Amino acid sequence: MSAKIFRRHFIFQRMAAAMGMLIPWAGVKKTQAEEHLSNPSPALNETLQTIQRLRTIHGNFNEREISDSQLQRILQSTVRATNSSNMQTYSIIVVKDRRKMQELCGYQGSCLLLYCVDYNRLNASAKSLGYSYCPDNIVNFITGGINTALAVQTAAIAARSLGIDYLITNGIHRGDMEMIWNILELPKEQCFPLIAVVLGYPSEEPAYRMGRLEGAGVIHYEKYRPASKEQLAEITAQYDDPTKHLGLNEVWKEKGYKHYLDWLFKDWARNAKPTKQETPMLKLLKRSGFVELQTS
Amino acid sequence: MSAKIFRRHFIFQRMAAAMGMLIPWAGVKKTQAEEHLSNPSPALNETLQTIQRLRTIHGNFNEREISDSQLQRILQSTVRATNSSNMQTYSIIVVKDRRKMQELCGYQGSCLLLYCVDYNRLNASAKSLGYSYCPDNIVNFITGGINTALAVQTAAIAARSLGIDYLITNGIHRGDMEMIWNILELPKEQCFPLIAVVLGYPSEEPAYRMGRLEGAGVIHYEKYRPASKEQLAEITAQYDDPTKHLGLNEVWKEKGYKHYLDWLFKDWARNAKPTKQETPMLKLLKRSGFVELQTS
Repeated sequence: MSAKIFRRHFIFQRMAAAMGMLIPWAGVKKTQAEEHLSNPSPALNETLQTIQRLRTIHGNFNEREISDSQLQRILQSTVRATNSSNMQTYSIIVVKDRRKMQELCGYQGSCLLLYCVDYNRLNASAKSLGYSYCPDNIVNFITGGINTALAVQTAAIAARSLGIDYLITNGIHRGDMEMIWNILELPKEQCFPLIAVVLGYPSEEPAYRMGRLEGAGVIHYEKYRPASKEQLAEITAQYDDPTKHLGLNEVWKEKGYKHYLDWLFKDWARNAKPTKQETPMLKLLKRSGFVELQTS
Repeated sequence: MSAKIFRRHFIFQRMAAAMGMLIPWAGVKKTQAEEHLSNPSPALNETLQTIQRLRTIHGNFNEREISDSQLQRILQSTVRATNSSNMQTYSIIVVKDRRKMQELCGYQGSCLLLYCVDYNRLNASAKSLGYSYCPDNIVNFITGGINTALAVQTAAIAARSLGIDYLITNGIHRGDMEMIWNILELPKEQCFPLIAVVLGYPSEEPAYRMGRLEGAGVIHYEKYRPASKEQLAEITAQYDDPTKHLGLNEVWKEKGYKHYLDWLFKDWARNAKPTKQETPMLKLLKRSGFVELQTS
């Protein structure tokens, strides 16, 4: 029992670490520019304002439930995303059991939508009519993954428009994936859990909205333009600027680092070293039949 | 020269085939239900209405340009999508040259946003501060790919809210990828073109909005539930129902097939057979350094 609790705690910690949790929403005073961002220009239409208000809640959802009709609105929205050849090669598992939610992703909200790339329904349809459909390569996995993520973002925007908050977590494909297969009884082949959305209401309003880079190095015109030395210095400065909120936290200051990016590369991303063995994900992609000519 | 034209024509055809083009927007009369869908309930907020109106334009954009301020609104929106640890591991190449657009994806609009998973800016930032950052495995590619697709869908919804139409094309990763690297001068490593959005105005209004499956087989509750025989029959029937517009076209009727899905599996997906050799995409993923311990 204690081993189990330890294991859950460990997974939770790993998930949290993988996803950028443990972020103190520091109570920094808002600048005029920030006020503008949290109350976007009335010149923006409602949808653009909703998009400007997108934000992620890191785990601190309260007990309030979203209603069934709101959940249905979000599900009716998520399927509206573009998908290749209208084959909808994904499955969405709606989880309302909070304990199960916690086990699956280390977070709890009113509801979890766990998105999988999934060709099983399509395969079964083919079989039922006497055909076979064989999406046994990485291209189909990626196409399915894109369909999936497009649907995820549509759910997130729909939720936000309803005043519901969310956490999108990549912890699903960066954590203990076998556990997810087991808990949700996912098919072993042609199905791959990828990403989840926790929906609910935050127990505490975030003090600010995260900023974004939106210039050189991210947006390029007509062709790829590597960031120049000056542009890199400007990016470093942007992360250090407390009014921009580009960083995950302000721990770097306490630690005496010169720049936020020092903390990011030295502490946060310390595991981004050359990979020495196959990742669990690659093994599972092979097992799922999504890497051509390879099985694990 | 004629070889070049032939090559372009061939690529265009392949792209079109890969993406579900050649879809006659049959002038079917709208049912009451469809009218409801194209003019969603006023009970829905503006954002949910925009989402319900999402649609893809298949190639027939006209010459009208979107304004620079609209483009900037869309770019300011796309970066608002959630991304892991706020590292924004993507690049967006904005292409306004229509000939280049045509070469890149087989379509032309006012503007093309080509999205790449891209760790080069981050790597360069690390290097400029004396660190190294090594995202050399499939997990980082997938995380980057999800960041990318979340941003893509945000751009699509923003565009639609501005009355601008779009095509999201997976043709980028399903077509001649080397060409994309060459035209856009993309870095050979740690950068991977994945998906593109063509923005513009349609030369012809689509006659209807594509339908979606939104029940069993797509949405599951609490755990995965394989579609039953009855549910599969119901899905087959839904694709056949002319009021639902789930199919890509009505060619199956002319061909004498009993069901739309007969056409889908027999004609459309006739290449979904067991993969006999490594796909170009897997080779390029290896070359880009996104498959651990492997180089091509």
